[in-house]
Amino acid sequence: MTTADALTRLHRKPDRGSTERAALDDVLDSVLVGTLATVVDGLPWAVPLLYARVGDAIVLHGSTGAGALRQVAAGAPACFTVARMDGLVVADTLFEHSANYRSAVVRGELQEQSGDAHWDALRAMSDRLLPGRPDEVVEMTRKELAATTSLLLPIVDGQWIVKARTGLPGEPESDPQAWCGTVELHEVWGEPQPAPWQPADRPVPESVRRLGGNRR
Amino acid sequence: MTTADALTRLHRKPDRGSTERAALDDVLDSVLVGTLATVVDGLPWAVPLLYARVGDAIVLHGSTGAGALRQVAAGAPACFTVARMDGLVVADTLFEHSANYRSAVVRGELQEQSGDAHWDALRAMSDRLLPGRPDEVVEMTRKELAATTSLLLPIVDGQWIVKARTGLPGEPESDPQAWCGTVELHEVWGEPQPAPWQPADRPVPESVRRLGGNRR
Repeated sequence: MTTADALTRLHRKPDRGSTERAALDDVLDSVLVGTLATVVDGLPWAVPLLYARVGDAIVLHGSTGAGALRQVAAGAPACFTVARMDGLVVADTLFEHSANYRSAVVRGELQEQSGDAHWDALRAMSDRLLPGRPDEVVEMTRKELAATTSLLLPIVDGQWIVKARTGLPGEPESDPQAWCGTVELHEVWGEPQPAPWQPADRPVPESVRRLGGNRR
Repeated sequence: MTTADALTRLHRKPDRGSTERAALDDVLDSVLVGTLATVVDGLPWAVPLLYARVGDAIVLHGSTGAGALRQVAAGAPACFTVARMDGLVVADTLFEHSANYRSAVVRGELQEQSGDAHWDALRAMSDRLLPGRPDEVVEMTRKELAATTSLLLPIVDGQWIVKARTGLPGEPESDPQAWCGTVELHEVWGEPQPAPWQPADRPVPESVRRLGGNRR
């Protein structure tokens, strides 16, 4: 087995892993911030980043001035991790406590985008964070496009792991000695807070209204 | 400048970085899941993990059978990243859109714990995830302690970065052409869901009741 195979193989709790691509997409589409890790001069290097999944790729972006992305833009091996905690799993012994969660690790080499692909990547990123917003505001200028780097991490078979835990703690063999159950953790959007330096009667746009109070 | 210095130095937006240790603790204490990254045979390797900050260290734990932690237990250089998105920053141009967030990256070498320190680490971890729970349930057995690995990542001056963005988008020089503002993103605990296989009249414990409906 090569090192890359060993890294991608799921060592523990294979029942919590899934090889279904739909499960990977579900995890990637339910989280907004991930961690990009790479190796710089033999040392681990990581940075949290916003991202968007677009088809078979993860899109990342940043300032062209950011040391962060320069490290990986040249095709260094990268590893992108996302995780979301869905709740606490409360058991009758300390040892059996756990968490419900969804997580994914995607390995590969980043590809810097240019031309139309660069524009598409940045637009996809904006549309992921606030769906519909790109159609409500002015397009990026040439100067703004040049100030931004976009990178694609292709999702390649055999180079990703998705894991999840759901549901109750395991049922003890004898009567449980303490309360058992779960407590879900939700992400919820707050009410839109308008900037004070705009006309007071400006309506909240459709993209923002759609979020209003919704669970993610 | 050594590579380690360069990795730790904040390249971009130094105004978003903070050298105050209290700010680091605030970030670490407000997030439940982080990403541990290391290097295995020259390749980046990362795994999402629950954690707890205890004083000047980050505590991690896992099964002794987990390949995940074996990779780093022997003192390999590690990098632990946490991030939390606090909301969307909605601007009048696509380019100026942003996110409010808190994030931290802590670099160092992990130390495997044993004896009393191992017990303390596991208990601290449980108490962080569900404060007060360790006092409500039976202690871990010797066998359970042996089935678990705990690792400490010391927080060392100069080996961490904390960053945050808060507040509105920047005020445009001319009248903004589209609605500007922010939308906060909160984490909220749901109602406790009891396991059906316990006595129906068993009361929800104090630790779980304290979470009830609260924002995190």
